[in-house]
Amino acid sequence: MKQYAQMSATELSALRDELKKAFDKDCEKGKKLNMTRGVPSNEQLSLCNEMMTCLSTNDYTAANGTDCRNYGGVDGIPEMKKIFSDILDITPDEVIVSGNSSLALMFDNVSVNMSHGVRDGVPWQHQGQVKFLCPSPGYDRHFTICKYFHIEMIPIAIGKDGPDMDAIEKAVSSDPMIKGIWCVPKFSNPTGIVYSDETVKRFARLKPAAEDFRIYWDNAYAIHDLGGSKIKIPNLLRLCEEAGNPNMPLVFTSFSKVSFAGASVACMASSKSNCEYIRQRLTAQTIGPDKINQLRHARFFKDAAGVFAHMEKHAAILRPRFKLVDDTLRRELDGLGIAEWTKPDGGYFVSFDAPEGCAKKIVSLCAQAGVVLTPAGATFPNGLDPKDRNIRIAPTCPPLSELGEALEIFCTVVKLAAAEKYLAG
Amino acid sequence: MKQYAQMSATELSALRDELKKAFDKDCEKGKKLNMTRGVPSNEQLSLCNEMMTCLSTNDYTAANGTDCRNYGGVDGIPEMKKIFSDILDITPDEVIVSGNSSLALMFDNVSVNMSHGVRDGVPWQHQGQVKFLCPSPGYDRHFTICKYFHIEMIPIAIGKDGPDMDAIEKAVSSDPMIKGIWCVPKFSNPTGIVYSDETVKRFARLKPAAEDFRIYWDNAYAIHDLGGSKIKIPNLLRLCEEAGNPNMPLVFTSFSKVSFAGASVACMASSKSNCEYIRQRLTAQTIGPDKINQLRHARFFKDAAGVFAHMEKHAAILRPRFKLVDDTLRRELDGLGIAEWTKPDGGYFVSFDAPEGCAKKIVSLCAQAGVVLTPAGATFPNGLDPKDRNIRIAPTCPPLSELGEALEIFCTVVKLAAAEKYLAG
Repeated sequence: MKQYAQMSATELSALRDELKKAFDKDCEKGKKLNMTRGVPSNEQLSLCNEMMTCLSTNDYTAANGTDCRNYGGVDGIPEMKKIFSDILDITPDEVIVSGNSSLALMFDNVSVNMSHGVRDGVPWQHQGQVKFLCPSPGYDRHFTICKYFHIEMIPIAIGKDGPDMDAIEKAVSSDPMIKGIWCVPKFSNPTGIVYSDETVKRFARLKPAAEDFRIYWDNAYAIHDLGGSKIKIPNLLRLCEEAGNPNMPLVFTSFSKVSFAGASVACMASSKSNCEYIRQRLTAQTIGPDKINQLRHARFFKDAAGVFAHMEKHAAILRPRFKLVDDTLRRELDGLGIAEWTKPDGGYFVSFDAPEGCAKKIVSLCAQAGVVLTPAGATFPNGLDPKDRNIRIAPTCPPLSELGEALEIFCTVVKLAAAEKYLAG
Repeated sequence: MKQYAQMSATELSALRDELKKAFDKDCEKGKKLNMTRGVPSNEQLSLCNEMMTCLSTNDYTAANGTDCRNYGGVDGIPEMKKIFSDILDITPDEVIVSGNSSLALMFDNVSVNMSHGVRDGVPWQHQGQVKFLCPSPGYDRHFTICKYFHIEMIPIAIGKDGPDMDAIEKAVSSDPMIKGIWCVPKFSNPTGIVYSDETVKRFARLKPAAEDFRIYWDNAYAIHDLGGSKIKIPNLLRLCEEAGNPNMPLVFTSFSKVSFAGASVACMASSKSNCEYIRQRLTAQTIGPDKINQLRHARFFKDAAGVFAHMEKHAAILRPRFKLVDDTLRRELDGLGIAEWTKPDGGYFVSFDAPEGCAKKIVSLCAQAGVVLTPAGATFPNGLDPKDRNIRIAPTCPPLSELGEALEIFCTVVKLAAAEKYLAG
């Protein structure tokens, strides 16, 4: 294979014409393929169908005697606190178990800190222009929360070991209006990287100028390993405690990609003291989470070991999909010098870097050929990828055959866009 | 029976001593009885136990083809929109079906209006000191939301036909910082009164000085009639539309006292246009409500007629409880000139008025005798009952026998407190 950069204009022109023909053929096929959504496939969801019927008609009492059908219990039932705390390696009183959406928990937490401050301190919104650090590419819906609350987003580069800690330490220690940072520490969305031990330790040892600075630690893929060996990241809560920053971290996770994406159980974990503040507020805010659904999860999974065993089944379904992505990309693009991509050990995405200035074009051409991708730039604050090269590939949802077809078209488009770029000089 | 006001000091003194003896006896019994909570009884909750198993393992597809197990659908599944819109006599596109807590919907709505304004207008919090009108006695948790957001609460008297509309019209038309009012239009909490047709019409025709004024219409007891005949209140959404105030009302209701109090489905209803704004926000805020639980409700109840039929079963359980309250109070207190109470046709409470200045004392004495009541004053903004006379009786939860015992003790205490008051002059 010859790298595109080394091809002559004639070679590139011939290649472009050939790729254009292939692309036109793809368009004629009129396929409708979707690689946008980081959602579980039907096959994965069906792993939990028994959950639908796992509670009998007289099974509604939690371990502490709570009638799960009735009101009350703002922070969840003991069974689910135990499961989440075992998974996160913390204590049950550091956990608040909630409804079905960890995103809602994060939104709510930012909302409250804006309007009421952390731990009843000075509301963020009364202190000036609030800023968040945003390791990028990152999770678009984190950025949407910032946008909604008019929080200024400061992009931070992210590498193989996690975000640029030098930049973070410098920013956080000098600017008291930096109030938060979004992190997906394990199988980061979309790059799939795992924060190194040293990265996590440096997070715990941050010395923020703002005493109300918070780490939003979205451990969405805490147990979503693709391989047999489980990757373990250091325990942020414990490290922060040791570093004298016990109230700095807010950890979020959920069973959205464990049980049913839309009908799962989410949780937040933080210091006991933070949890007490939050419980107080929840009493004003809600009649409590759906405890029956929590009990349903507890009965179905039994314990953390049950959850881990279940995740093996997910991994078995997902491995071939991720393999297909990597195999196809390597076969079609290796050695051309036009693309890089990640090969994650877990999570839900492959992050793909096209030649600079080509991402938007690729997404648009793919759409013409019936392959819908996440909008280019979505993984950057305000949707602005400074190099217009990152594309998020979500291989979990489409059936394997459709995924294959979509990837073929995607590769043709990437090559076409690259050829045109090099032709244009 | 002689009225206490007409008794001589000697008579009152003898009566007081006799009642004190009875009270001391009550205390010795060491009962533990609870009349605080407006929650469904075990018997009521058990009416829905079949809901636990009503979805089969392959039943997860909504009428519009949505896989309820997966992400998405921020405003609910068509089946539940239909049921709620039939119950509220509106159209499905005026309904947003949510999670398990209408209180959370109200909190959220106030929160957003404070921080972002209604329909992306000027945030309430940037306009000055926000005020809400609070018909009182009312629902304590409405007032808690105001308190949380530092919203000034203006009490409004409430009578047999609803709140004092003259006072409301005057306040709303003259003060642009009055942004909302809390209403429980049917079987108002705690008085049990139903707003008259004329009251509802006057609400719709309000001419608020604030164009971002909102009526928080908490129709919590929309279908919670105790008797065979159903009370129907006028349709606020339609009336507001006709009066040129289409976006003014925000209607809330839930199945908390229909299915499982803690695992039900709640909804919000408003103009189509308001619903569109809300849907936009929800997209930033959450991955969507638990659609499986919505489907579970739809399958169990089938349609609005199924819901109405189910409510007859609740009524059959509740009628003897409310009858016991009225029978006991009448037998013990009628003709003494020391108490008034409501005899509601639905809802969850009996509102009891003791002699002025006696409510706190009665609640405290009852506690000594093992009967826990809602704190006196809880039904007023900031917990301040100006006349210290209102007590909320919640007869739904305790078993009938316990309720009887609690009411006997309550009546003894009321008489004792009244005798002491009259003795003190």
